[in-house]
Amino acid sequence: MNNRTITIALDAMGGDGAPAIVVYGAKEALKRNPNLKFHFYGQQASVEPLLCEAGLHDDERCTLIACTDVVKNDDKPSNILRSGTKTSMAQAIRGVHEKQSDCVVSAGNTGALMALSMFTHSRIPGVLRPAIATYFPTIRGESCILDLGANVECDAQQLAQFAVMGEVFGSITLGLDRPSVGILNVGTESIKGHPEVRAARDILQAAEVLHDFRGFVEGTDISEGKIDVFVTDGFTGNLILKSAEGTAKLIAHYLREALANSLGGKLLYLLGRKRLLQFRARVDPRNYNGAVFLGLNGISVKSHGSADARAFANAIDVAADLTQYDLVSKIGERIGMLREAINSDKTMSAK
Amino acid sequence: MNNRTITIALDAMGGDGAPAIVVYGAKEALKRNPNLKFHFYGQQASVEPLLCEAGLHDDERCTLIACTDVVKNDDKPSNILRSGTKTSMAQAIRGVHEKQSDCVVSAGNTGALMALSMFTHSRIPGVLRPAIATYFPTIRGESCILDLGANVECDAQQLAQFAVMGEVFGSITLGLDRPSVGILNVGTESIKGHPEVRAARDILQAAEVLHDFRGFVEGTDISEGKIDVFVTDGFTGNLILKSAEGTAKLIAHYLREALANSLGGKLLYLLGRKRLLQFRARVDPRNYNGAVFLGLNGISVKSHGSADARAFANAIDVAADLTQYDLVSKIGERIGMLREAINSDKTMSAK
Repeated sequence: MNNRTITIALDAMGGDGAPAIVVYGAKEALKRNPNLKFHFYGQQASVEPLLCEAGLHDDERCTLIACTDVVKNDDKPSNILRSGTKTSMAQAIRGVHEKQSDCVVSAGNTGALMALSMFTHSRIPGVLRPAIATYFPTIRGESCILDLGANVECDAQQLAQFAVMGEVFGSITLGLDRPSVGILNVGTESIKGHPEVRAARDILQAAEVLHDFRGFVEGTDISEGKIDVFVTDGFTGNLILKSAEGTAKLIAHYLREALANSLGGKLLYLLGRKRLLQFRARVDPRNYNGAVFLGLNGISVKSHGSADARAFANAIDVAADLTQYDLVSKIGERIGMLREAINSDKTMSAK
Repeated sequence: MNNRTITIALDAMGGDGAPAIVVYGAKEALKRNPNLKFHFYGQQASVEPLLCEAGLHDDERCTLIACTDVVKNDDKPSNILRSGTKTSMAQAIRGVHEKQSDCVVSAGNTGALMALSMFTHSRIPGVLRPAIATYFPTIRGESCILDLGANVECDAQQLAQFAVMGEVFGSITLGLDRPSVGILNVGTESIKGHPEVRAARDILQAAEVLHDFRGFVEGTDISEGKIDVFVTDGFTGNLILKSAEGTAKLIAHYLREALANSLGGKLLYLLGRKRLLQFRARVDPRNYNGAVFLGLNGISVKSHGSADARAFANAIDVAADLTQYDLVSKIGERIGMLREAINSDKTMSAK
C-alpha cells in the first residue's frame, strides 16, 4: 500500500509565498515520499522558472498545467464561483473531480477553496454539512479538532456527524485504530451545555458507532490532549483556534521581551538560541499545517496562507495520507452506519 | 473619593489555600489601600489563629464573623441554595445584601457563588441575564471579556446588554473613559456569523449607547488586545478562556522541556532563572485574578480557586475598584439607556 502512487494537484498560485513555497514544498515532500506525483496549476511564466531552479522541470513526476487566472486573497467566494473557473485553484480542484489527480493542496483564500470544493465535489451521501478539521500539538502528543468555521450554527445531528467524520480523520492523521472522541462543553457533567451538545451526546451514546466516545470534554482538555478528537460547532471552533494562536504569539512576545531587555537577557538569548529555536519549532504552526474539508467526494487540503516550503510539504503529507487511507470512502461507510443507527430503534429516545 | 472606606466581605473558607490565602491576601491589600475594611466569614477555630499570626487580630479594620458551615468544591449549586444558608459564602453574600459590607470576594465553588449571588441579590432593573466578566493580559496591555459561562445560550438582546455591562466593567477595571467594545465573530465582515451576533451588532449600532463600538472582532484580536472589551456568549467565552489557559500551560511545558533536556539547557535555565521568572509573572493567571458577576444588585468577585495570597489580594483590589466607582448604579444607568434606545424608533429596523 505504501508503494501506491498518489497524484496531488497543487494550486501553485495560492499563499503569501507562492509559487516558490509550493515548488520547494513539493520538492521536500518528494524526498520523503518518492511515490508522489504533482500537477502544478499556475501561471507558466512564474512557475516554470522555479521548477527549473528546483531541478523539477524534467522530473517525470512533476507536470505544469498552465492557468491564466489566480484567486486573490480578498476575492469573495460568491464571485469566485461565478467567474473563477479559469483560476489555478478552480482548475486544480477540477483536476481531482476529473480523476487526473487524487487530491488538492492550496495555500490560497480559504473561503474560495471551500466554496469551489463544495461546488465541484458533491457531498458524500448522507453527510448533512461538510466540516473543517485540523490537527495540533498537545502536552501528550497531537490531537484533532473540528469544525473550524464551515458551519457557524450546528444542530445535534450535524455535531454527531462531525464526531464520526472526525474519528476517521483522527485515525488517519494520528495513525490510531481507536481514537477517543469527545464533544467540547462548558463542563463534563451530563446536564451542562446547550440542548444541541446534549442531544448530540445522546445520539452518539445510543448509536454506538464510535470506537471510544468520551462524552463531554472541557476547554482545558484541549492542550492537555485528554482525547484525540475534539468536536464543536464552527463558531466556537474558529474562535478557540484563533485565540489559541493568539495566546501562543503573546507568550512568544513576552518571552522575547524578557530575554531582550537586558545584557543578561541578551547573553541568555545567545547562549540558548539553539534550545529556544527547538522550543519554537514545537509551537510553530507550520509544523501543524493542513486543514481538511471533511464530507465531500474529494480531498481538499488547506495550507496556512503564510506557509513556507516546509509547512507546505507538511500539508502535502496530510493530503497524501488521507488519499492513501481512503478518507472519502471511510467517511461514507461510517456516516452510513450512524444514519442506520439513528433510523433504527437504538436512538429513538435520543432523537 | 479615594479616601472612601470600603468594607469587603471575605469568604475565608473558599479556595484551595483557604483560610491562609484569604487572611494574607487581605493583609497585602491593606498595605496598598489602608482605607479597606474586612469582614472575614469563616470558622473561628481556623481563621482566628491566622489573624493573630498575620497581626490582624487587633486591627480595627478586620472583623471575624464566625460561621459553622463551608461550601465544598463539589457541592451542587442547587443543594447550596436549599441547605447552604449557614456557610461562610452564603453569610458573606448576605452581609453585602444587608449593607454590612460593600462587596464580597470568594475563591470558593464558582457555581455556588453565582447561584447564591443571584438568589440573594436581585437583578438590576432591565437586565435580562447576569454575565461573568474578567480581564486578561494582551500584547497591548489588558483587555476584558464576557460572558465566561453564566449563559450557554444568548440571544441578540442579551449580547447587546453584555456589551453595555462590559463597557462599564472595562472602564473601571482598565481605567478608561471610552473603552472600545466589539463582538467576537468568525470574521469581521458584516455578513459573517450566526443571526444572534449579527442582530446584536445591529442593535448596538442603532442604539448608539456605546462610546466606541467596533462591530465584529476575531479570535486573533484577543491576545493582540485590538479592543478593550470582547463580547461573546457564555459557551464560546468559557471555551476560549479555558483553551487559552491550556495553551499557556502547554507552552510553559514545552519551554521547561526544551531547557531541561540537556546540560546546556540546564545551565541556561540557571543563568536565566530570574528573566524566566519575570516572563512567567507576565503570563501568570494569578496576576489577572478576579472574575465578576455583572447585572446583579451587589458585587461578587470570584478569585481563582488555586489563588495564593498575592492573587487573592488582586481580586480584593478588583472588588474595591468596582465598589468605589459604583459598578452597580452605572450598569443600571447604561442598561436603562440601551432599553430606551431599543424602545424608541432608533432600533426599530434592527429589532
